[in-house]
Amino acid sequence: MPEFQTDVAIVGAGPAGLMLAHLLHNAGIDSVVIDNRSHDEIAHTHRAGILEAGSVRMLESAGVESRVHTEGHRHDGIDIRVNGTSHSFHFPDLIGDSVWLYPQNEIFVDLAAARARTGRPTYFSVTDTHLGDIESERPWVNATTAEGEDLQINARYIVGADGSRGPCRAMIPADTKQRFFHEYPFAWFGILCEAPPSHEVLIYSRSERGFALISQRSSDIQRMYFQTSPDTDVDVWTDEQIWAELQARVDGPDGFVLKTGPIIDKTVLPFRSAVTEPMQHGSLFLAGDSAHTVPPTGAKGLNLAFADVSVLAPALISALQGTGAEALAGYSQTATKRVWKAQNFSYQMTRMLHTDPSQDAFETKRSLGELNSILDSEHGRRYLAECYTGWPNG
Amino acid sequence: MPEFQTDVAIVGAGPAGLMLAHLLHNAGIDSVVIDNRSHDEIAHTHRAGILEAGSVRMLESAGVESRVHTEGHRHDGIDIRVNGTSHSFHFPDLIGDSVWLYPQNEIFVDLAAARARTGRPTYFSVTDTHLGDIESERPWVNATTAEGEDLQINARYIVGADGSRGPCRAMIPADTKQRFFHEYPFAWFGILCEAPPSHEVLIYSRSERGFALISQRSSDIQRMYFQTSPDTDVDVWTDEQIWAELQARVDGPDGFVLKTGPIIDKTVLPFRSAVTEPMQHGSLFLAGDSAHTVPPTGAKGLNLAFADVSVLAPALISALQGTGAEALAGYSQTATKRVWKAQNFSYQMTRMLHTDPSQDAFETKRSLGELNSILDSEHGRRYLAECYTGWPNG
Repeated sequence: MPEFQTDVAIVGAGPAGLMLAHLLHNAGIDSVVIDNRSHDEIAHTHRAGILEAGSVRMLESAGVESRVHTEGHRHDGIDIRVNGTSHSFHFPDLIGDSVWLYPQNEIFVDLAAARARTGRPTYFSVTDTHLGDIESERPWVNATTAEGEDLQINARYIVGADGSRGPCRAMIPADTKQRFFHEYPFAWFGILCEAPPSHEVLIYSRSERGFALISQRSSDIQRMYFQTSPDTDVDVWTDEQIWAELQARVDGPDGFVLKTGPIIDKTVLPFRSAVTEPMQHGSLFLAGDSAHTVPPTGAKGLNLAFADVSVLAPALISALQGTGAEALAGYSQTATKRVWKAQNFSYQMTRMLHTDPSQDAFETKRSLGELNSILDSEHGRRYLAECYTGWPNG
Repeated sequence: MPEFQTDVAIVGAGPAGLMLAHLLHNAGIDSVVIDNRSHDEIAHTHRAGILEAGSVRMLESAGVESRVHTEGHRHDGIDIRVNGTSHSFHFPDLIGDSVWLYPQNEIFVDLAAARARTGRPTYFSVTDTHLGDIESERPWVNATTAEGEDLQINARYIVGADGSRGPCRAMIPADTKQRFFHEYPFAWFGILCEAPPSHEVLIYSRSERGFALISQRSSDIQRMYFQTSPDTDVDVWTDEQIWAELQARVDGPDGFVLKTGPIIDKTVLPFRSAVTEPMQHGSLFLAGDSAHTVPPTGAKGLNLAFADVSVLAPALISALQGTGAEALAGYSQTATKRVWKAQNFSYQMTRMLHTDPSQDAFETKRSLGELNSILDSEHGRRYLAECYTGWPNG
């Protein structure tokens, strides 16, 4: 029966948990990482793929041998398309930075390989995860390994990087936490298709038929989305109907035509915003989706998880090395400031670009006024570019 | 019985109508201006007092002998105060421009004097205003003068600068226009008081008790507001209660204390946003409040009326001088682009700074995230400063 005495027990081996483990390892701090999913399951779950410049710098400075620079693609901007007219944002010109297109599951593969090279323990496919004594200085996590053995982890701290449905968040007593929640009246119909890229950067398109996002994945696989109702059944949509709908939402006087191909995956992404505060209780700290989820419009999910880790890792290191526990005590307060900026940006991008069946005509016009205020102004474009590429920390 | 054959009949002798009349006069174009209010009534109606840089430049370049530079005060910024902490915006540093504090009724006095010097006719205190044949090239306006005489104005064009309750807007056939409307769940309790200024620039304060605006009027009279319920009865509030409420909404660790004094006026300002499109039909053109009203948060009302006039005057001059009618045909489309930016800015300032009793906890936190996104970012501050001081035309 595997039993560990470690510094930090990390529940969740997604990018947030593994990035944290790597930064701790670099500082000589031990951790044990567990996840209820298998390595292959995480490696094959398609998620968002836009990395803020700061997220890429985190991978670099942590010494993770990531393929972001070889397999990923630097994106120097986005297009915002309004009723058929494209408005180009060039990030290096606007704010001197860029973003990277590199799928989240590939980051996981890189981080899992980096973790394996450290020789420190990681357990995938565990079941029956429980944790306890989080109000003490000797909290514990236990679970059953894939081989059916009891796994016991005694740690100084526990980090819950276990996603929006993991067990950690629930351990914070109800009377000490607050859950903020917002549901949106739409969802995204997402496809993966075998086709060449239709454009060199992402196109966020507002049209009277609703929002569409023309994204990329690689030279021969593309990702596209269009706004739909949350109760959409993807199976009743034929490829022809999907392409017609996507094309209709980007049609414009410039004659832009999507490059089409066989659709190999269809899915509906729900939209919701949620935040739990505080993101810590006693010896337990939450990071990433376990504390907050954002709608996909702002591409902030993974970046926000990395931002949490960039605050949490040095705070844990400092506390464990005896050089001060103030940063750890203030973790939630520091991290949630950025969380709410990201929630706001995701909300604003969503409201500016989608058509809401329940909204009145004033709101449709006002949100177009908001978009024009930004598009027509150099200051507005820089402001949006900064929100998109990521705020400096702190 | 006064009877006129003129180029432009202007219904409404507020700042928009009189500014238009002045610009037309400068180009040698005749107009007759009427208003159902008396000169003194308009001169003594206290309204907003923040002039965008572009509005001041309009007064200057039109040769109106305005006292804005002698009696008004240049404001180089605003303070945005969040739960007791002030964030200073210095407009010249941020965008190289300023605004001016100069009450709207004083602008009216200046413009009315400028109009009188031209010798062209202006009728105050008219009654029974009617207009007709607006789909023809010979529209007319008639009314009864203060002396009880029939007034008949035959014109090539009519401009409705007659405010939100004037008769002009109703002349646009219902099936050709659209009215956009938004009501807000709050209002402002406004006071005039005899006291020295509490601060050199306007303070927009967000607090848990609600919004407050600390404004100025002159060295010994000040204007202040605090968010209230629309059904507030101002008479049940004592001076002591009002000062306590205002002070509570600006209290902070910096120990900021309002300078108080006798309250000489109390009023409730309702909040609403409304836009009518198109702002023209046949020979009739709307300008200012007759086409659109904004909540007072963005100080855009008068500035937007002047912006309409800055588009409409050259368009009318060009059409009447035979050098092209395209600008006049496109007036509504040109003007409403700015109108919707101003509606959005007023809406955003309102949502960011007020507490909405019906809003959920997510929205309270998100709007604080929006405010922090702007306050923490040089780009965000420039963007807000540009919205506040006014966009370039076009």
